[in-house]
Amino acid sequence: MKFVQRLRQAWAAQQSLLCVGLDPDPARLPRHLADARYPIFEFGRAIVDATADFVCAFKPQIAYYAAARAEEQLEMTIAHIRQHYPATPVILDAKRGDVGSTAEMYAREAFQRYQADAVTVNPYLGFDSLQPFLDYADKGVIVLCRTSNPGARDVQDVESGGRKLYQLIAAQAARDWNANGNVLLVVGATYPQELGEIRAIVGDMPILVPGVGAQGGDVAAVLANGATADGTGLIISSSRAVLYAGSGGDYAQAARVSALKLRDEINACRRTSR
Amino acid sequence: MKFVQRLRQAWAAQQSLLCVGLDPDPARLPRHLADARYPIFEFGRAIVDATADFVCAFKPQIAYYAAARAEEQLEMTIAHIRQHYPATPVILDAKRGDVGSTAEMYAREAFQRYQADAVTVNPYLGFDSLQPFLDYADKGVIVLCRTSNPGARDVQDVESGGRKLYQLIAAQAARDWNANGNVLLVVGATYPQELGEIRAIVGDMPILVPGVGAQGGDVAAVLANGATADGTGLIISSSRAVLYAGSGGDYAQAARVSALKLRDEINACRRTSR
Repeated sequence: MKFVQRLRQAWAAQQSLLCVGLDPDPARLPRHLADARYPIFEFGRAIVDATADFVCAFKPQIAYYAAARAEEQLEMTIAHIRQHYPATPVILDAKRGDVGSTAEMYAREAFQRYQADAVTVNPYLGFDSLQPFLDYADKGVIVLCRTSNPGARDVQDVESGGRKLYQLIAAQAARDWNANGNVLLVVGATYPQELGEIRAIVGDMPILVPGVGAQGGDVAAVLANGATADGTGLIISSSRAVLYAGSGGDYAQAARVSALKLRDEINACRRTSR
Repeated sequence: MKFVQRLRQAWAAQQSLLCVGLDPDPARLPRHLADARYPIFEFGRAIVDATADFVCAFKPQIAYYAAARAEEQLEMTIAHIRQHYPATPVILDAKRGDVGSTAEMYAREAFQRYQADAVTVNPYLGFDSLQPFLDYADKGVIVLCRTSNPGARDVQDVESGGRKLYQLIAAQAARDWNANGNVLLVVGATYPQELGEIRAIVGDMPILVPGVGAQGGDVAAVLANGATADGTGLIISSSRAVLYAGSGGDYAQAARVSALKLRDEINACRRTSR
């Protein structure tokens, strides 16, 4: 099944646009996990089990696993999701970007080794650098467009012929890169106006929106500017605000409460915006 | 010692601007290594030992190790270089790019886990995404500017106010991002004219130049357009043309011959261009 179709089914079945990002910072793991053989996996599994009822996707961030020399625990985490929540897509947040045979290796890393359903990629190297990912027609390729950080402006706002770079990327993604119907975009929640501009360019292409919660993005503004006419079109991702809602033995329960609250807040805005 | 200083010492001591890229494609490894416990490491070690006399740096490409579930063999390869050729810098080719705490994790991956001396990064997310790397003042941060692939044009040639994006990146890198003196750029050998433009913008900032050999970049044009007044300034990287010069039991000797030939070809052009 195509990734976008899986995503639409998850939106409907879960009644949720919420994605929980798995960014397991070793310095912030609950203390009682310190002695576990696989502390990062145990943390991720507990978060997944606690929040799976309320999400349309999970998004593990590979940097946290790589910095901790814990690729095996990333494999275990994704395998756990696939086994217990097979209808929930896994987005590997890796922001890869390279050329030719190296790009093929990165695609293999995401889709074969980790069995991710989608991966985030960086468009700076151009279309041919994305092709090896796009060739996996059933997988999602989520292209950075307008990121959530303040410095996003440095490069992404460079203006050419009256349009900014992120608008040009959005237009190329929708027009030239999407022959397999498997392109999505990343637009930060911290830039709702830009999100609206991009929505106008890309029609109903799904958009991954990080930056609500810890980074300060406003849920109502995201929905008002980014949702499609049917009140979907968005994968709204929160990591730290869910993962570290609690820090003691109740961290999983605290994450569940936080995820439920955020899903409901999103859904309340969906009703309003329709 | 600062990375750029280490690099200058290696240029002088080795009389070489050549960098050998370690892109160990499992499908192209010599057959007799198939039964080794660590075939990718054994291959890399043999290439390193065969070519170390002729290089100013080694550049392992992490995607090949990640696709093969072989991070440990990447660690072993880098450890081998550091132990036996401590004066030769190791550039981790990873093209990372992310924001905030995730960027910190990628910097930790490159500089702490793998102990690389420098890492390649992607500028699309802007200055604040590079800061966690730049904060390692003794490490090199090698920013993608104009890549070697045909699709480089799609994004990097976007024109604004009479300048192309890659020129704007080069200018920002030299002017705004280099407070620690640890920024370098990537410019593909396949675009010698652009290399000359970028050299004019960045003064004597070292430039990593992939794309000679298999990708067709011309050594003479690279030197003529990219070398600094003292005939250095460049890290000219070749991967496949060296790694796969032979395919039988003599692959390391074939790599040595190929690397020596390329180093000498580069040096001949250095003499001419001075």
